[in-house]
Amino acid sequence: MQAPATTRDDLAPAASAVLSRLRAQAPRVHCITNSVAQAFTANVLLSVGCVPSMTQSPEEVAGFAAGAQALMINLGTFDAERSAATEIAVQAACANRLPWVLDPVFIDRSAPRAGFARHLLSLKPAVVRLNQAEFVALAGRPSEPAALTAFAREKDLVVALSGATDTVTDGARVAAIANGHALMAKVTAMGCAASALVAACRAVEEDAFRAAAAALLIVGVAGELAAEKAKGPGSFAVAILDTLYGLDGDTLARRAKVT
Amino acid sequence: MQAPATTRDDLAPAASAVLSRLRAQAPRVHCITNSVAQAFTANVLLSVGCVPSMTQSPEEVAGFAAGAQALMINLGTFDAERSAATEIAVQAACANRLPWVLDPVFIDRSAPRAGFARHLLSLKPAVVRLNQAEFVALAGRPSEPAALTAFAREKDLVVALSGATDTVTDGARVAAIANGHALMAKVTAMGCAASALVAACRAVEEDAFRAAAAALLIVGVAGELAAEKAKGPGSFAVAILDTLYGLDGDTLARRAKVT
Amino acid sequence: MQAPATTRDDLAPAASAVLSRLRAQAPRVHCITNSVAQAFTANVLLSVGCVPSMTQSPEEVAGFAAGAQALMINLGTFDAERSAATEIAVQAACANRLPWVLDPVFIDRSAPRAGFARHLLSLKPAVVRLNQAEFVALAGRPSEPAALTAFAREKDLVVALSGATDTVTDGARVAAIANGHALMAKVTAMGCAASALVAACRAVEEDAFRAAAAALLIVGVAGELAAEKAKGPGSFAVAILDTLYGLDGDTLARRAKVT
Repeated sequence: MQAPATTRDDLAPAASAVLSRLRAQAPRVHCITNSVAQAFTANVLLSVGCVPSMTQSPEEVAGFAAGAQALMINLGTFDAERSAATEIAVQAACANRLPWVLDPVFIDRSAPRAGFARHLLSLKPAVVRLNQAEFVALAGRPSEPAALTAFAREKDLVVALSGATDTVTDGARVAAIANGHALMAKVTAMGCAASALVAACRAVEEDAFRAAAAALLIVGVAGELAAEKAKGPGSFAVAILDTLYGLDGDTLARRAKVT
Repeated sequence: MQAPATTRDDLAPAASAVLSRLRAQAPRVHCITNSVAQAFTANVLLSVGCVPSMTQSPEEVAGFAAGAQALMINLGTFDAERSAATEIAVQAACANRLPWVLDPVFIDRSAPRAGFARHLLSLKPAVVRLNQAEFVALAGRPSEPAALTAFAREKDLVVALSGATDTVTDGARVAAIANGHALMAKVTAMGCAASALVAACRAVEEDAFRAAAAALLIVGVAGELAAEKAKGPGSFAVAILDTLYGLDGDTLARRAKVT
Repeated sequence: MQAPATTRDDLAPAASAVLSRLRAQAPRVHCITNSVAQAFTANVLLSVGCVPSMTQSPEEVAGFAAGAQALMINLGTFDAERSAATEIAVQAACANRLPWVLDPVFIDRSAPRAGFARHLLSLKPAVVRLNQAEFVALAGRPSEPAALTAFAREKDLVVALSGATDTVTDGARVAAIANGHALMAKVTAMGCAASALVAACRAVEEDAFRAAAAALLIVGVAGELAAEKAKGPGSFAVAILDTLYGLDGDTLARRAKVT
């Protein structure tokens, strides 16, 4: 069974509405993420109007997670403390029915990390955001369209696969998002920040498929606009924060490339 | 008893003199701060002419603290190692009669962290820099003007309360500082960096009240000037570092809003 | 015995060739570095075309190091986990005959850290990049030219000493590099990022002496070009990433100051 393609007419206005709600509701998003990505991720969340927190102390992470509207788990620094904090935070999210997002960074390069990611899958993330190599390591199958939708159905989650064209699917629907710019791959933590934005969007949008698509559209369109002003990856990283801060819903909807 | 308001005529030239001394003396400032804030905090300190260090290894933090001219403790990442390092660093500061500054980030969201902050108070920080919610959690009373001065007197320290208008008091004197810009809240670690600047100013100014007011004036005026050039939080974070680097004492004194 | 000075005619085209190979080969560079430096270091590596990784979990660092083309060890955060990870990563590098670079940050301010650095020397780094105070702490002798070459010969490594003029020597050859700009000292992690670039250059250049010189020329020339556009340390840090991204080999060779 092939999942039906989702139209631009559905997702572009949905993304615009999600962006408005981010600013109006200023959701708290708790992130357990690698130390390379923390500052940029916090700044991306602040730029779109969210309130980030980043604590990873096992003694207090449950309180932070429970007080947030969404949780993002990024495995980019897979150490003992962060693993323990991740377990606690995800349990707190589950107990409080909070949505959470998994970003299994580099699991293709570390077997223990891949094993932990598979364990976390059993705790029901709303969305898994990852690239092709990470999908192969997580799902044990090639990252073909049919495999993505099958995996999403089996695991009852949304897969958001980054690439030249991003693919988002919940098993029933599938969207291909062609926004973005090559400079995004030249700034560390761009993908990690996108995962945090997925969690933020899910905090203000019950439909995890629409939330994930909205996040990737927001970051992709902001990336294109920022690249127009940038002279390289340094000014690009600055410009994407400025652009996220000032992005209006009409521009977002007009530039959305959903195929 | 109401603490007397301090005039602009006192604090504006004092801030200008402190800024000159920062550049002339280049004090070493050791910071134990959260990993989100480390790089931006170090860059703020470098921009005003200080020499930052950020080590938090329990085995070596005493040496770094003892070799610095001031210490800043930020509780934004409250993990076991940082707690142990904090105890050691503060003891080293006390033993060497070095001033130290406490920034009890987010203690309103974590009871264990609030308990640790209260313990640290007994070790006599020169200044506590915090926001309203953190003051309530620390002092167990509303953040009204009379409560701030009473708390400062009781604990024999300077309270520097951030907000739309900042309040600085040592219990005997009180200053309201109205500089700053809304974009400062859209850049992660801006408050943490301000706390580090309070420590730096205290390193070159014996009067902790004047030192704290000078730091908040420097960062507030720099924030206003940076906002004039910024297109959003990304370019604002860049511009505030440039502005701190180039800020002259006359501009600082002229733009100081002390009421 | 005085080591012969190396000419500009040798090193300038060599640096240009190394820069081309960085972009063509996109080497993986694994860095165990302090948390202050991680994001900027990753962005510097990305800007010149490399693929950085930063994991420091003892359970998985061996795999990351073994899968990289070079390893960089920076002692700026000397905690228990990083020390354990460093041992494992260096052993993995040795077992896989991968070049690795040591940056013994601040060993002049911490005896335990200096002891660890001396232990690491016995594990044969290809290059040690450090400043004068760190050399004195590591080698136990003044940082005079003859001492640098003698130390390089004794330890069978390349010494890359940063300063107003950088000195690079393998004991047989010596180069003085006069590129760079004062603003480089006003951005945190600039030296740490330079060390990572030394590792990256060594990944694509067998001759560790030429690799180290190429890295210092690349970062020094980029610093000079960035300073022409910068208004202070904030815009300088942005501009150096843009410049590294766009730097062409002809400009690099033409501006190289090797004396």
